[in-house]
Amino acid sequence: MTRLERVMHELKTKGLTQMIVCDPDSIWYLTGVDVAPYERLFALLLQEGSQPTLFVNRLFYIPKDTPYPLIWHTDSQDPVAQIASHVDPSQPLGIDKEWPARFLIPLMEALPSLKILLSSDCVDDCRAIKDEEEKEKMRIASQINDKVILRAKDYIRAGVTEKEVAAFIDREYLKEGCEGPSFTTIVSFGANAADPHHEPDDTLLSEGDCVLFDMGCRKDRYCSDMTRTYFFKEPEEEYKKIHDLVRRANEKAESLIRPGIPICDLDKAARDVITEAGYGEYFNHRLGHFIGQRDHEKGDVSISNTTLTKPGMIFSIEPGVYLPGRFGVRVEDLILVTEDGCEVLNKVDKHYEILG
Amino acid sequence: MTRLERVMHELKTKGLTQMIVCDPDSIWYLTGVDVAPYERLFALLLQEGSQPTLFVNRLFYIPKDTPYPLIWHTDSQDPVAQIASHVDPSQPLGIDKEWPARFLIPLMEALPSLKILLSSDCVDDCRAIKDEEEKEKMRIASQINDKVILRAKDYIRAGVTEKEVAAFIDREYLKEGCEGPSFTTIVSFGANAADPHHEPDDTLLSEGDCVLFDMGCRKDRYCSDMTRTYFFKEPEEEYKKIHDLVRRANEKAESLIRPGIPICDLDKAARDVITEAGYGEYFNHRLGHFIGQRDHEKGDVSISNTTLTKPGMIFSIEPGVYLPGRFGVRVEDLILVTEDGCEVLNKVDKHYEILG
Repeated sequence: MTRLERVMHELKTKGLTQMIVCDPDSIWYLTGVDVAPYERLFALLLQEGSQPTLFVNRLFYIPKDTPYPLIWHTDSQDPVAQIASHVDPSQPLGIDKEWPARFLIPLMEALPSLKILLSSDCVDDCRAIKDEEEKEKMRIASQINDKVILRAKDYIRAGVTEKEVAAFIDREYLKEGCEGPSFTTIVSFGANAADPHHEPDDTLLSEGDCVLFDMGCRKDRYCSDMTRTYFFKEPEEEYKKIHDLVRRANEKAESLIRPGIPICDLDKAARDVITEAGYGEYFNHRLGHFIGQRDHEKGDVSISNTTLTKPGMIFSIEPGVYLPGRFGVRVEDLILVTEDGCEVLNKVDKHYEILG
Repeated sequence: MTRLERVMHELKTKGLTQMIVCDPDSIWYLTGVDVAPYERLFALLLQEGSQPTLFVNRLFYIPKDTPYPLIWHTDSQDPVAQIASHVDPSQPLGIDKEWPARFLIPLMEALPSLKILLSSDCVDDCRAIKDEEEKEKMRIASQINDKVILRAKDYIRAGVTEKEVAAFIDREYLKEGCEGPSFTTIVSFGANAADPHHEPDDTLLSEGDCVLFDMGCRKDRYCSDMTRTYFFKEPEEEYKKIHDLVRRANEKAESLIRPGIPICDLDKAARDVITEAGYGEYFNHRLGHFIGQRDHEKGDVSISNTTLTKPGMIFSIEPGVYLPGRFGVRVEDLILVTEDGCEVLNKVDKHYEILG
């Protein structure tokens, strides 16, 4: 089945005959048409028994050989009215989870009797299972990430700032032919690492600090994402113990992965390791997330996700322990679920290691 | 009036007593709380007669001295249900234009009788009028942009690629202490410049090519955005004529700006210059856009915007002529509407100029 056929099949299973897709990555995934619409409307209307139809601003370039009907609009036209005239108001309309209120509310006002419901899962659950071409791109993006983190480790020296290291990593990605980082590169020193989403600032590296890299690149549209935590010179005794603990939690979850495992069990397995050691309250986020064209795609690796793993899924395994005001440790790999286990896409050693 | 008071006043004018704000830049603008929520829920509920309330994931850092009530959730809780329990279902609820369907549809399902309507204008129209602190930040971001484009011109030489020049510009922004570019830096050579949204690729610079820079930085949250088009070595005769035409269209619009002008008149004035010269069909986008914390904020400078200019507004003036397969020219400044005219934030010369 083509990607489009898989999505149409999912829609049918949910009793839907029509859906608005607006996530540009989903539209590219289904049609090969690549547009970055920013605040303008760009949408794909899927309807049973018809060709998928693209609604697109004249400003954007659509390849001449695109086989799908195109409904064009300019900045002075109302594209929501165009969509309203194509939708069958007697049937429920599936809506992409990303569609912003600025289009959805006017569509509901134009078709007040229309029943709408969220139906992104029909696309996202297909995107979550990578095909061979996608797996290969994901492997390449992680290989680049593995290479670049080694260079970043070499770049670490006393007095360097987080921002300087992050900028170095971003430059290396470009040298490797990437589009760029797949998210804002995180380099956190010392107590800054206790905030899982700290952004690099002018903090200088000092002896005994932990050095947390959470980094990924986007190459040929597909993303990598890995975290490693090192230490600059010998740290306090407890740091090594916590690093070992977090690594063991990561390895425990990875050891369980094969098709048919409830995803929540992975979160629980890693969390149990940390909780049993007395640090449960300091692991304050989900274990991981799905990834593909974006660093975060639909699919939590969390206690609330009872979905079973399937071959082709790619997600992160990233337990952490964060001690406010002191330091934080996170160890993250991407893994691909295979027919009989999993392939860890990151090969960089994850044991406790002292830099400098 | 504080920013919050201005927004509450706007809501009242529209007959609203409550609104969900979700744009992180709007939340920062109103509360000073800075969170990048990615796919997670982060929202500010404004209600007449109550303190604004923040709905925030435990994962995010909120300064201890934040004076607003905080309703926390974790990844395994349902934050939409929390919002539903705080909203007054007997009163219409204003919705931020950016709120995605994944939160809006469940809220409507939780409160089926709730009347909702788009009310972003209440915030965005305040954000469109910059206060003194914001004006100063916008001036600084444009000063950096002016500096960096001069260095980018010097960097131009035969055989360089678009990507190399764009990466050079991005590095210079970081050296100047910026967060980074305010959008993907555009460097287009020759026929690539005929696509207004072309992204830098491995195209090599050749003699006679136009060299279009569309670039901006983000410094202390506020953005710059400027376009200049040069030529590498002597181009065909027509190129100079078109560059002069586009510059004149830019200058014509800028010469009209003072408080009280319908914004559509600016678009018309620039478009008339280009149309009268016979190139109207090759100017296929609006004249400009508002800008602030993001490179594109609410407010088109287009034929359909009849709003009157007011002191404190900052927007771009960027006419262009694009000849498919040949070349493109765009000349863009940011302007600030002042009490009696306008201040052009970009000082870089915009006349026809040959590089190399």
